[in-house]
Amino acid sequence: MALTLHSPLDMHLHLRDGEMLHNIAKESAHTFAGALVMPNLVPPVTDKAALLAYKARILEAIGDEHFRPNMTLFFKPDYDRAFLETLREEITAIKLYPAGITTNSEGGVSGFDVEELRPTLQAMSDLGIPLCIHGETNGFVMDREAEFVPIYEKLAKAFPKLKIIMEHITTKESVAALERFENLYATITLHHLIITLDDVAGGMLQPHLFCKPIAKRPEDREALLDVALRAHPKVMFGSDSAPHPKHAKEACGCAAGVFTAPIALQVLTALFERHNALEKLQDFVSGNAQKIYGITPIPKRVTLSKEPFTVPAEYNGVVPMYAGETLEYSIKEVTDG
Amino acid sequence: MALTLHSPLDMHLHLRDGEMLHNIAKESAHTFAGALVMPNLVPPVTDKAALLAYKARILEAIGDEHFRPNMTLFFKPDYDRAFLETLREEITAIKLYPAGITTNSEGGVSGFDVEELRPTLQAMSDLGIPLCIHGETNGFVMDREAEFVPIYEKLAKAFPKLKIIMEHITTKESVAALERFENLYATITLHHLIITLDDVAGGMLQPHLFCKPIAKRPEDREALLDVALRAHPKVMFGSDSAPHPKHAKEACGCAAGVFTAPIALQVLTALFERHNALEKLQDFVSGNAQKIYGITPIPKRVTLSKEPFTVPAEYNGVVPMYAGETLEYSIKEVTDG
Repeated sequence: MALTLHSPLDMHLHLRDGEMLHNIAKESAHTFAGALVMPNLVPPVTDKAALLAYKARILEAIGDEHFRPNMTLFFKPDYDRAFLETLREEITAIKLYPAGITTNSEGGVSGFDVEELRPTLQAMSDLGIPLCIHGETNGFVMDREAEFVPIYEKLAKAFPKLKIIMEHITTKESVAALERFENLYATITLHHLIITLDDVAGGMLQPHLFCKPIAKRPEDREALLDVALRAHPKVMFGSDSAPHPKHAKEACGCAAGVFTAPIALQVLTALFERHNALEKLQDFVSGNAQKIYGITPIPKRVTLSKEPFTVPAEYNGVVPMYAGETLEYSIKEVTDG
Repeated sequence: MALTLHSPLDMHLHLRDGEMLHNIAKESAHTFAGALVMPNLVPPVTDKAALLAYKARILEAIGDEHFRPNMTLFFKPDYDRAFLETLREEITAIKLYPAGITTNSEGGVSGFDVEELRPTLQAMSDLGIPLCIHGETNGFVMDREAEFVPIYEKLAKAFPKLKIIMEHITTKESVAALERFENLYATITLHHLIITLDDVAGGMLQPHLFCKPIAKRPEDREALLDVALRAHPKVMFGSDSAPHPKHAKEACGCAAGVFTAPIALQVLTALFERHNALEKLQDFVSGNAQKIYGITPIPKRVTLSKEPFTVPAEYNGVVPMYAGETLEYSIKEVTDG
């Protein structure tokens, strides 16, 4: 049995920089037609020169793969409108991080006063630039995302023409918020469709499944699966694939992030098949994102076959999800067009 | 400023066996007058010969420290009454583990049918042997203890003369259960008075704070603090100090357990002082346990002084809680009598 996906897109991806970028970028570029690339470098991507230089480094790192990095700018509340206009063609979205909430987010937003954020948000709304948000408060780890929902709603109400994407949602509260405001959308990762906190800390502690937002409760996973498996038009696949070197994951004080880029499509295919939802996978991994962002990806055909694939223990020093395990589906062929 | 504790007791302690026993037993034996020693060895302690041999190994490991190991037997549902009678003077309690719920608990109980458990429980009730339970279901990690409360209550009701100790409680639900049945008691660890899941997984992942039951929510910690700080007569200190080698904690698939034995009294003193509850500490760390178990510990005076103590990075290869940090209180003097 084989299945062909057309131009799969990963709408939330960490490609990092330097050696790590070179070590892992091809893993995404081989099987995806494009990805929304997160700007949380050190320092974050906040100007045109940095953005273009980062894009050039990405293109260099992926070599001859056909892959389009959709670039994002790191949100600042006081971006000049003219500045954003000059960048409009270069960026697909702007990514907002609450300060200190995850890897390299120290320069993010503290407090969510609408008037303070208005200069950038109004310009984005006028220019049609979507806003991506890592929506967590600094509250108790299991409550952070649900506590952020009122902030999503405040922003959605204040800027009704601004498309706001709730990134890597993990809770039933975020799923419910999708229905309350027309301009709220969401990305969902692979791992949050599969694991709960039980998989991270219910048996032995599993650092390679530790991420932010942390995986939540079974009923949260069910809510995510419900909208993903029917390719709800407001949700898109975004892996949040976030590589760290093995030693930084298997350590006292382990960094947050799950590396799923090389196995995402194989696992999603098996998951959607198991739920009799294979016909919805194309929209979840590409169609919905094209409509929400108004983008046309480069043509790419990825054929998966139901042949076992044993996941390598590491990809250039990064341990992937399912390392050493055997998946049901393999990437059989990738062709342009 | 100095404070003297009389015969402090640790009513839930893992001393392990072999090399680990030799590496860590003195850390408890130095500052505690006694401890309730858990029987989850491989194989578990289920007969008199094994019990006496383990006790002898403990006494050998602690050398010339004055310390009484209060021994426990690993619960089996069908212990012979005559067998328990012959052991009555040798054991302080019997410890029940649900099967597979924590380290070396594979031989524990599956299902909690009162009639199946009756042979041992009725004999224990008649002989006045307290029952210690690791109360967790195999449900979602944050719910396991609260889900077990009905089982505690079923047993408390079926055996009203049996003293049942809810071990290392972590939730407000367990605290509330204390009030509902006269024969329910509880131990509380040091770390569950201090940390929540936030400390384990809210920032970077902290394997040395990963334990079973896992630390819960802020309101759960508040409920534990409330009964501990007033030395509620049904609660006792039990560290659940559970050493693992450093490499087993800082690894992919980290083992559960926090090693607190060498720092427990120092940290408890600072904690009770901060809450203006120093006058309750003696009962929490000794008096309540003496009454609940009807035991008279060996005399020991442990004097703590308000002098900084920097916690070693390791004790013979085991990383303690607060490794490398400086505590407010030090052990100043330990004397017999």
